[in-house]
Amino acid sequence: MNNASAAQALRVGIVGVSGYSGVELCRLVARHPSLSLAAAVSDKWAGAEVGDRLPIDGAAASVRIRPQAETSDAVAGLDLVFLCTPAEASLDLVPRALDAGARVVDLSGAFRLPMNEYPRWYGFTHTRPDLLEGACYSMPEAGASGDIRRARLVSNPGCYATASALAALALLRGGVIGREGIIIDAKSGTTGAGRKAGEEWSFSEIDGDFRAYRVLRHQHTPEIERALALADQGALRVTFTPHLLPTRRGILVTVYGRLVEGRGAAEAEAAIRTFVAGRPFLRAAKPDAVRLQAVVGTNRVLMAADADPERGVAIGFAAIDNLVKGAAGQAIQNANLMFGLPETAGLDGLPGSAP
Amino acid sequence: MNNASAAQALRVGIVGVSGYSGVELCRLVARHPSLSLAAAVSDKWAGAEVGDRLPIDGAAASVRIRPQAETSDAVAGLDLVFLCTPAEASLDLVPRALDAGARVVDLSGAFRLPMNEYPRWYGFTHTRPDLLEGACYSMPEAGASGDIRRARLVSNPGCYATASALAALALLRGGVIGREGIIIDAKSGTTGAGRKAGEEWSFSEIDGDFRAYRVLRHQHTPEIERALALADQGALRVTFTPHLLPTRRGILVTVYGRLVEGRGAAEAEAAIRTFVAGRPFLRAAKPDAVRLQAVVGTNRVLMAADADPERGVAIGFAAIDNLVKGAAGQAIQNANLMFGLPETAGLDGLPGSAP
Amino acid sequence: MNNASAAQALRVGIVGVSGYSGVELCRLVARHPSLSLAAAVSDKWAGAEVGDRLPIDGAAASVRIRPQAETSDAVAGLDLVFLCTPAEASLDLVPRALDAGARVVDLSGAFRLPMNEYPRWYGFTHTRPDLLEGACYSMPEAGASGDIRRARLVSNPGCYATASALAALALLRGGVIGREGIIIDAKSGTTGAGRKAGEEWSFSEIDGDFRAYRVLRHQHTPEIERALALADQGALRVTFTPHLLPTRRGILVTVYGRLVEGRGAAEAEAAIRTFVAGRPFLRAAKPDAVRLQAVVGTNRVLMAADADPERGVAIGFAAIDNLVKGAAGQAIQNANLMFGLPETAGLDGLPGSAP
Amino acid sequence: MNNASAAQALRVGIVGVSGYSGVELCRLVARHPSLSLAAAVSDKWAGAEVGDRLPIDGAAASVRIRPQAETSDAVAGLDLVFLCTPAEASLDLVPRALDAGARVVDLSGAFRLPMNEYPRWYGFTHTRPDLLEGACYSMPEAGASGDIRRARLVSNPGCYATASALAALALLRGGVIGREGIIIDAKSGTTGAGRKAGEEWSFSEIDGDFRAYRVLRHQHTPEIERALALADQGALRVTFTPHLLPTRRGILVTVYGRLVEGRGAAEAEAAIRTFVAGRPFLRAAKPDAVRLQAVVGTNRVLMAADADPERGVAIGFAAIDNLVKGAAGQAIQNANLMFGLPETAGLDGLPGSAP
Repeated sequence: MNNASAAQALRVGIVGVSGYSGVELCRLVARHPSLSLAAAVSDKWAGAEVGDRLPIDGAAASVRIRPQAETSDAVAGLDLVFLCTPAEASLDLVPRALDAGARVVDLSGAFRLPMNEYPRWYGFTHTRPDLLEGACYSMPEAGASGDIRRARLVSNPGCYATASALAALALLRGGVIGREGIIIDAKSGTTGAGRKAGEEWSFSEIDGDFRAYRVLRHQHTPEIERALALADQGALRVTFTPHLLPTRRGILVTVYGRLVEGRGAAEAEAAIRTFVAGRPFLRAAKPDAVRLQAVVGTNRVLMAADADPERGVAIGFAAIDNLVKGAAGQAIQNANLMFGLPETAGLDGLPGSAP
Repeated sequence: MNNASAAQALRVGIVGVSGYSGVELCRLVARHPSLSLAAAVSDKWAGAEVGDRLPIDGAAASVRIRPQAETSDAVAGLDLVFLCTPAEASLDLVPRALDAGARVVDLSGAFRLPMNEYPRWYGFTHTRPDLLEGACYSMPEAGASGDIRRARLVSNPGCYATASALAALALLRGGVIGREGIIIDAKSGTTGAGRKAGEEWSFSEIDGDFRAYRVLRHQHTPEIERALALADQGALRVTFTPHLLPTRRGILVTVYGRLVEGRGAAEAEAAIRTFVAGRPFLRAAKPDAVRLQAVVGTNRVLMAADADPERGVAIGFAAIDNLVKGAAGQAIQNANLMFGLPETAGLDGLPGSAP
Repeated sequence: MNNASAAQALRVGIVGVSGYSGVELCRLVARHPSLSLAAAVSDKWAGAEVGDRLPIDGAAASVRIRPQAETSDAVAGLDLVFLCTPAEASLDLVPRALDAGARVVDLSGAFRLPMNEYPRWYGFTHTRPDLLEGACYSMPEAGASGDIRRARLVSNPGCYATASALAALALLRGGVIGREGIIIDAKSGTTGAGRKAGEEWSFSEIDGDFRAYRVLRHQHTPEIERALALADQGALRVTFTPHLLPTRRGILVTVYGRLVEGRGAAEAEAAIRTFVAGRPFLRAAKPDAVRLQAVVGTNRVLMAADADPERGVAIGFAAIDNLVKGAAGQAIQNANLMFGLPETAGLDGLPGSAP
Repeated sequence: MNNASAAQALRVGIVGVSGYSGVELCRLVARHPSLSLAAAVSDKWAGAEVGDRLPIDGAAASVRIRPQAETSDAVAGLDLVFLCTPAEASLDLVPRALDAGARVVDLSGAFRLPMNEYPRWYGFTHTRPDLLEGACYSMPEAGASGDIRRARLVSNPGCYATASALAALALLRGGVIGREGIIIDAKSGTTGAGRKAGEEWSFSEIDGDFRAYRVLRHQHTPEIERALALADQGALRVTFTPHLLPTRRGILVTVYGRLVEGRGAAEAEAAIRTFVAGRPFLRAAKPDAVRLQAVVGTNRVLMAADADPERGVAIGFAAIDNLVKGAAGQAIQNANLMFGLPETAGLDGLPGSAP
């Protein structure tokens, strides 16, 4: 559809194309006016063509999928490689892709935190402090740890971290809440965990269920704190509790902060309106209109806030599609920024999937 | 099944038998060893027998359902009447049932709050302050506003209020959290709203969706505060945010409080263990085992807690079935207490519905 | 995204834009390279802009929605009007749109059957036999009742009828099954019924449920028979049983026919392969790969077949998205054919919504 | 609750207590007035007490679960053992339980078919033709292969086979359909497959999906044919197609047969009424009232039928809970018959789980 200028399009590769983020990214690249899928890597689907596995038409459909061991060959000469792989795999694949001459957007957690945080939150010691040092962590509506236009390696934010940091940031920037005691109660669909075998991920166990998990131990806690620091909020602590929804896609976060004296509902709403102004993917709404069906399939962040001076609390809400704004869509957005393309290229006109 | 002693059984009536709480109550009465269904009232099902509408066997199945206008006649001479009706309807029906000589358990919100709270939270002025004054609000594991053994009118707690008050109370009694800044992030299945027509309640709009509603305006906010006051916690304020889950049954609440200096995870867990000790329907678990599938179909409350001294926060969890412990089951529990029956009569051996 | 040639684009209107088919059509028009949304009509959303209600960007977002009473004015001067309205409403609106000079694609059932079938299957007598006579019923992969390139009024097929007729037709054309005793067991998500209030459509009643409805009385029965007749299969009878799935989108039909002597599984599979050859939206698969997740969000029809000579039966499967190939997507496909555009214009590159 | 006569209760064991059928059976035994849980076996839960894993109260809760290798010891001296194990495991465990002196109800497929059918449908050669010869296959509302009151080994029917055979049998016995060309289109919730790991069983893959599986190859095909033969219908063939619903519990089957000349809707309805008469677990309904929510949690079979003389077809419907009437409930029903207890003992008063 978009291949009028395919000759001048940037040639991109996707490693880990069979995961949920990889699938979504493949769809988005296939419809992007300035990107052209030139390589796809997955052990699971190795040997097949992209069009055999995904409902994708056009040139991208005929790209043959190669095994992960052939990544270096597969991505040689490409302009950009997206890594949709687990953190440990990305640690190994990022240098291979960089060595092959490509710029990289890594969707894993391998380059999101300061080095000393890895043992506690990810359970391993980081083996590439050199690459970590130079990686540009970029959440476009909050901030970045470097100049993305020059970055060779961009670290794409996590899904929970995106929704959480943006909701908290809107209230902080608006002067509505203080820096102490921020609480983020987050709820996600099951695709946030990636493709999962295991009885606890089975339909019979999750349908009709709801529960918290990794309480006080989720690795997006320090990432939210880092994203807020990059957004000029300094060092602060947040309490983050993820819950598992009986649905496939979408994240809703409910953020509680201590209301600044003299502020109220009007200031909370104004903080949201100000925060979304001029940002193409952010939208303000009423609290009960911040719902998953309104964002699934799109790169949008739907946001709202209210406050109760009597109880001294402000509440912020943000909803995203965990696989789009929370992963593949934000990766495209970051790629657009890396190459000087319009920020919305390939991301507008997404038809959504509601209802 | 349990009718060996049907001759001596207490004769009970259910008004509003076609609603979700009424249906559940009907099932529970039918299997209760000391209660016998003698009357059922519902405009929707008037004229049918109970067994035509519900998968219920035995004597209860042949009770003929009468219209609401005939309530006084229908309940004349009964020992106990359960009202599963909207608050406005209960205001009218409670005096009729009392005048007919029955004791009453009202499952609506009509007698849960101090009179002056009704205009703000329920949108009407209470017309029966005399009855409200004498009503006994009873949440057995927290406290009651009078002596339930002598009460003519018992006000049964709301579903959210039950889960929320118990989770907060466990942490407060354990000295784990302070009285300031308590936040309750609650999530409920759709049956909590009762039988609903209306497009916004349709499957197409709710499946795959998740959102908050009645933010800062839900009528269970003051009820939670009252239940905590009745449990000797004095006057305190809570922030309560309900969300709508894409599932039918179950409530999970996540309660955040400010950690008392010197307390930590061990004290939080101990507070739960102490709170559940000796209470037949309360169970302690790990936070990620507090899940809806483990409580749906039962009168149980599954509870857990954790704490993070670094961030100064404690988190409590409670899960219930909104139609059982949150409505019909607690009503049976209250009826047992009213008549000096074992607290668990008719409520043990519930088979649950998981998975 | 597609507005490079917006100046030359066909100007289209959508009446009934707030229904599920209307929403989907709006999304599809907004991304179509040769169509431009110029008018939108809906009583429910009257006064708002399209972008206020739908996650749509670009020029389409700023179209102001007008009430249905203003349809004639709203569509005056347009090239094409899509009617996403109930059958009775279409009977009134089609002449208004034609009189205003526009060509029309009607997505309702108002122009799908011979006149004499309306009282039995739709419950009303058709008031516009003149328009019915000239209407072109068009299911592109099966056949049409006239020359769609010249048609002023095109009647777009029903969702069940599309999946059912195509699955049966593949086996009939392949000489695999006889014309007697064809049975179609169909299962649909809830959006097939449109936006619905009413307790029986509520989430609490449909989640966890499954049942048949309108057994032997569904109005798509004669439409399937007509579509097969238009595909040169002559007059035959099918038994059609619709069931309601606890999911929002997608239809799967299982078609049973009496196996022609000497035929078997190989011929059944070959019949599918032959049928899909050269048709851009049809795809062959194995029976257990014909699943809703693989088609939702796309205009595709996934098809399979098998046969059991021992029992003398062949089984065909077809899966579609009821809102895309079953409604809005096929309407776009028909519009493309009406105006000599490529059949796939605006329909390729649809990203799907799985998982 | 039911332990007044526990001294005289039959002592039973459950092997495979951690599977979905085992869990359900455990709940049913715990509330049965004449059965007492004396042993529980499961490798997965070995070492725990039953009450640690299941919401069960009373004496059953304190039974300690033993590993499968200790089955012989665990069941020594019991009156009855239920095997909720895979077919291959049952082949090994049945003789061990019989040798230990217990009577056995096997819920697996190991003793359901004639010996020669095992290689084709189960993929193994039966190693115990001696036990198979003497096993009593019993579907109480259809028939049995021997005298269940004297049987040492009872083979409990499969879930699909139960719903399918009963629906077909009602129409056959009523003289409504012929023996040729019977088609059974069946749809089941996910628990029918047991506890499953594996990505294809994950929530992300099944929610929103629907598909057929094991087309023309499902092992319940010959079991349905055998059940009909045992019900005096002689040797006939059925076509059976299972589909996977995005819900946890329940089976609905839609059965199509060729209408006998001169019969119609009235005869089809009468056939159902006659079939359910006097059978405590069978209920007649209208076709669109045969729904999963009405049977889940109960041992009931809800049935309906209609016919279309114009198309020469009759349609029958049956709905069951796959884990109750399709497994554990029917096993209790068979145990009741084995020991001369009332057929409904322990199975009436089941509260159901709808909504």
